[in-house]
Amino acid sequence: MAIIKVLFRHQEKEVEVPEGTNLLQVVALAGVPLEGDCGGKGTCGKCKVRVLSGNILETTMAERKFLFPDELAAGWVLACQHEVIGDTVVETRVHSDDYQSKNVMKWQGSKVKVEPCVEKFFLSMELPTLDDHTPDLERLIYCLPQRNDIKISRNILSTLPRLLREAGFQVTAVLVGDRIVAVERGNTSGRVYGIALDIGTTTLAGYLVDLARGEVLSVSVSSNPQSVYGADVITRIYHAAYNKDGLKQLQDIVLGAVNGIISSLLKEAGVKKEEIYEMVVVGNTAMSHLFLGIDPANLAFSPFIPAFKCAVELQSSELGLQLLPESRVLLLPNISGFVGSDTVGAMLAARIDQRKGTCLLVDIGTNAEVVLASQGRILICSSAAGPAFEGSHIRHGMRAVEGAIESVIIRDDVCLGVIGNLSPRGICGSGLIDAVAEMLKTGIIDETGRFVDTEKGRCKLNPQLQARLMKNDDGTEFILVPGNISATGKDIVIAQKDIKELQLAKAAIYAGIQVLLQEMGIVTENITELLLAGAFGNHVRKESALTIGLLPSVPLHCILPIGNAAGEGAVLALLSRTERERALSLVQKAEYIDLSARADFHERFIDALRFPEMHTI
Amino acid sequence: MAIIKVLFRHQEKEVEVPEGTNLLQVVALAGVPLEGDCGGKGTCGKCKVRVLSGNILETTMAERKFLFPDELAAGWVLACQHEVIGDTVVETRVHSDDYQSKNVMKWQGSKVKVEPCVEKFFLSMELPTLDDHTPDLERLIYCLPQRNDIKISRNILSTLPRLLREAGFQVTAVLVGDRIVAVERGNTSGRVYGIALDIGTTTLAGYLVDLARGEVLSVSVSSNPQSVYGADVITRIYHAAYNKDGLKQLQDIVLGAVNGIISSLLKEAGVKKEEIYEMVVVGNTAMSHLFLGIDPANLAFSPFIPAFKCAVELQSSELGLQLLPESRVLLLPNISGFVGSDTVGAMLAARIDQRKGTCLLVDIGTNAEVVLASQGRILICSSAAGPAFEGSHIRHGMRAVEGAIESVIIRDDVCLGVIGNLSPRGICGSGLIDAVAEMLKTGIIDETGRFVDTEKGRCKLNPQLQARLMKNDDGTEFILVPGNISATGKDIVIAQKDIKELQLAKAAIYAGIQVLLQEMGIVTENITELLLAGAFGNHVRKESALTIGLLPSVPLHCILPIGNAAGEGAVLALLSRTERERALSLVQKAEYIDLSARADFHERFIDALRFPEMHTI
Repeated sequence: MAIIKVLFRHQEKEVEVPEGTNLLQVVALAGVPLEGDCGGKGTCGKCKVRVLSGNILETTMAERKFLFPDELAAGWVLACQHEVIGDTVVETRVHSDDYQSKNVMKWQGSKVKVEPCVEKFFLSMELPTLDDHTPDLERLIYCLPQRNDIKISRNILSTLPRLLREAGFQVTAVLVGDRIVAVERGNTSGRVYGIALDIGTTTLAGYLVDLARGEVLSVSVSSNPQSVYGADVITRIYHAAYNKDGLKQLQDIVLGAVNGIISSLLKEAGVKKEEIYEMVVVGNTAMSHLFLGIDPANLAFSPFIPAFKCAVELQSSELGLQLLPESRVLLLPNISGFVGSDTVGAMLAARIDQRKGTCLLVDIGTNAEVVLASQGRILICSSAAGPAFEGSHIRHGMRAVEGAIESVIIRDDVCLGVIGNLSPRGICGSGLIDAVAEMLKTGIIDETGRFVDTEKGRCKLNPQLQARLMKNDDGTEFILVPGNISATGKDIVIAQKDIKELQLAKAAIYAGIQVLLQEMGIVTENITELLLAGAFGNHVRKESALTIGLLPSVPLHCILPIGNAAGEGAVLALLSRTERERALSLVQKAEYIDLSARADFHERFIDALRFPEMHTI
Repeated sequence: MAIIKVLFRHQEKEVEVPEGTNLLQVVALAGVPLEGDCGGKGTCGKCKVRVLSGNILETTMAERKFLFPDELAAGWVLACQHEVIGDTVVETRVHSDDYQSKNVMKWQGSKVKVEPCVEKFFLSMELPTLDDHTPDLERLIYCLPQRNDIKISRNILSTLPRLLREAGFQVTAVLVGDRIVAVERGNTSGRVYGIALDIGTTTLAGYLVDLARGEVLSVSVSSNPQSVYGADVITRIYHAAYNKDGLKQLQDIVLGAVNGIISSLLKEAGVKKEEIYEMVVVGNTAMSHLFLGIDPANLAFSPFIPAFKCAVELQSSELGLQLLPESRVLLLPNISGFVGSDTVGAMLAARIDQRKGTCLLVDIGTNAEVVLASQGRILICSSAAGPAFEGSHIRHGMRAVEGAIESVIIRDDVCLGVIGNLSPRGICGSGLIDAVAEMLKTGIIDETGRFVDTEKGRCKLNPQLQARLMKNDDGTEFILVPGNISATGKDIVIAQKDIKELQLAKAAIYAGIQVLLQEMGIVTENITELLLAGAFGNHVRKESALTIGLLPSVPLHCILPIGNAAGEGAVLALLSRTERERALSLVQKAEYIDLSARADFHERFIDALRFPEMHTI
């Protein structure tokens, strides 16, 4: 089979693949970020790329459905619909992740005593003499404050004799726990760094941390490029389960993105990769499996058993990470198949075990995890909210990047806030919640989520709003942005199906919270703090979240966004052995409530599908 | 540069090398065993190969010195003298290592309680249910008798989910210490194997051990192919130090030979490579360094510092050994730069710490180690005897393989014993000691080692013996085998220089023993047992060893050959945790005496160069 070249123009990336490879696979291989919900089925219409040169066969049904004639004429295709034939040049829409880096993933600066597992010891050793035949390794170990059970790899040992002599026996030994991970020339004890990594289903976030001073020096965020294989966890697990090499593809692509994050973290902080001695990783259970290349298939099939939940330690070289080969990678423990170490990180950062009163922590990502701490107990559940809050499975949904509608106010007409103050391209999770809350308040939809369809109902609306309600083959839609002012040239709408998706998502979370309250034997009024973790929690308007009944009705001042708590927890575990032990004790203490096994969850879920009653004007 | 092919006909091995590569390097690369003392300097004349097709340039001075005209005409060359040009077919003299396997390396069958570090547990696990979400790994660990701090690699974890389900959750877990090295389908607890390996400078010996029954199932011995880079340790260290990639060459070639041993051990015993879970390795300190690819340069230069002496543990995959990738390789600890883990193995097998009286252990290999145990103390020294006892640096010396003269009796004329009852090709260590002892007894040489050169002295000899004394440019020689009955067509002689080599070697050992006795505050008469370890110890005639003054004059019945005690010690450590701990305590207890730093050693050495006085008839 011929090998051909595919160039991604904006990214200046070129890959070589066998002719006939699916273009979406090529995108994945190149590690180029591209949105997509359906994992290549041709049903979401989001994997748009433009073929600048190369041979593209006939336009498919799916393309006719999702692309405009002028887009088709300009060479835009859906990547999943085509095989590459001959050398090809491709362009993708580039959107900057800077917005997220700058605004979403801020290190909150929790106070913590700096006591990392990485320790540096400058050793000024006696030179060997005819009267002192101590071998090189033993000479070094005898100088360490703790000498027992010290481990060293063959690689480091093999370079030790030359290094010691070149350095005049003045070296710095770097230990992670009881393992020597590096021996460096001279005194380097001032430079000690580590990386904390949060592997989200949608977003990857890395933090470069100065382990001597306890400071975050740089932050880097990127999309999880696994999304070309599906927006949600289950689609990716299916990909791993049903495709030869599927697991390896998913692992390779995320490792490639992590290497990209590492590279930009190092560059920004002015740190060398050899100076990173430990990396602490959090992620949901499926992401942990995929990161390690461990088959997650059984997470998708009853009775939903993970391969492991304990903390996993390995060397970065085993994963091919571009770090000091001996550096340690530690994945914090998971709690269950559906509550991962990212939730452990969030609990750690939120200090959920140290707060007074009754504290509810909600981390809304592609899945939603809910933690309820009260009276010394910690209850946890995972709610299969789906990726609607990340903009997936929503007709014009998109991630919270430039061009996304992030806030909506509806009075006489519609007012929008768009990320980057650009022409809008679509709507992200917080914008969607705003829009639906406002539509509910203005009576565009009712408590069941349906658009007003009586003449009487429509007449109550302002004429501008009435004009935005359109009927077509798919049912009624609300036009948020008309095509003449959108960036895509198409109307940006809220469809009946989008509202349905949001109802399913918010009902799952609400019902999960209710089950935990019930299990704890308390009621909504007992909640003293409601912590919103995650990028979404930082951006959602609290009022709107309450309006649509995503959250239980607590006073507004009780709701506190706490940022990317998962990543912050990883930073804490990297900085402090005490925090790391606290993570383990949180895992021990947490009681996992399996919602799928509870009849009362299903009842509450059905009840919660309706929106709370409105007192319309 | 063109890449050409070199085929070794007998071994059916083909290697590809850049044109112009030295032929001795090619031999090394192919892992073909070939004798050689000088490491390619052209001064020993032993690296003979026959070029069957290919381009060989002019015959060199060295070849004219060491090869007969008919050998040259038949295409024999010294490998070190030529570069390969164009595709080449080469033949080497093949000598079987079977003799050694069968006769030298017998497992002595020490009684030991079988309690290996490798343990197998058959686990019949409960199936996961909706009420029991225990992850796969935790489910497995909970079934183990000891659950704390169990370690598992990413590789094994990645295959666990599928394996457990295919096996219906009926598996056997294999632990080495606290590490899971394999999980096998069904109940395999009856099959548990390990390998013990002794890496000698000249000879490699492997033992495949049934760890369930405590039996040695197969033994395999081969030459250490590093000998093409020099017969002795120091020449090899120089090779590693002064040649780019020299260290890697030495490591690769010995690992290749070890893989050969592993393969024949497995074949003979009917065991699969995946069933070998641990390998215990002993060797002298330099061999341990080279086996691990760790720079041994500082062992060759004052103050002679090894990189390490502690026990080293690693995974077999790190060395590229053809075993279960996760299987553990353990190198027993060394004692000093010149006393390695092979001596620890020998002490272990000899139970030197458990014997009554005063016990002297002498292990004569390429170097000689002497251990003196008395009054609860253990003193050790290493004597740079050189490889004369292995047949190296001796004009017609060779290893104890087929065709080697292994015993010599001189009465009216010369009687010889030849290994394999073949025409003699050369003389091995035990033959040389016999020959010199007999020459001493018959007055062919005197106590200074010189051939009788007075007319009066010669007249005392039988005429047949007189006729064997020849003078030529190199001085006097004694013809042991005339060319018309030797396998080489050349006289096999004992030259003055050969006797000198033997004197240097035996004086070093004798003087070392005297220093240890002095240090212990005892005399020769206090010795109750003299244990001779190693292949050499099994074959040397005790009387001859006493006659030439290699050993102190103890009664004959006190001298006990104990076989390859180093390898046997490795087997013991493989079979028993208690024995392994005893090895560590022996290392702790042993007091190393550095002979090079002692003036009294040099005095005793000079004294010991003479042979003991004879009462000639």
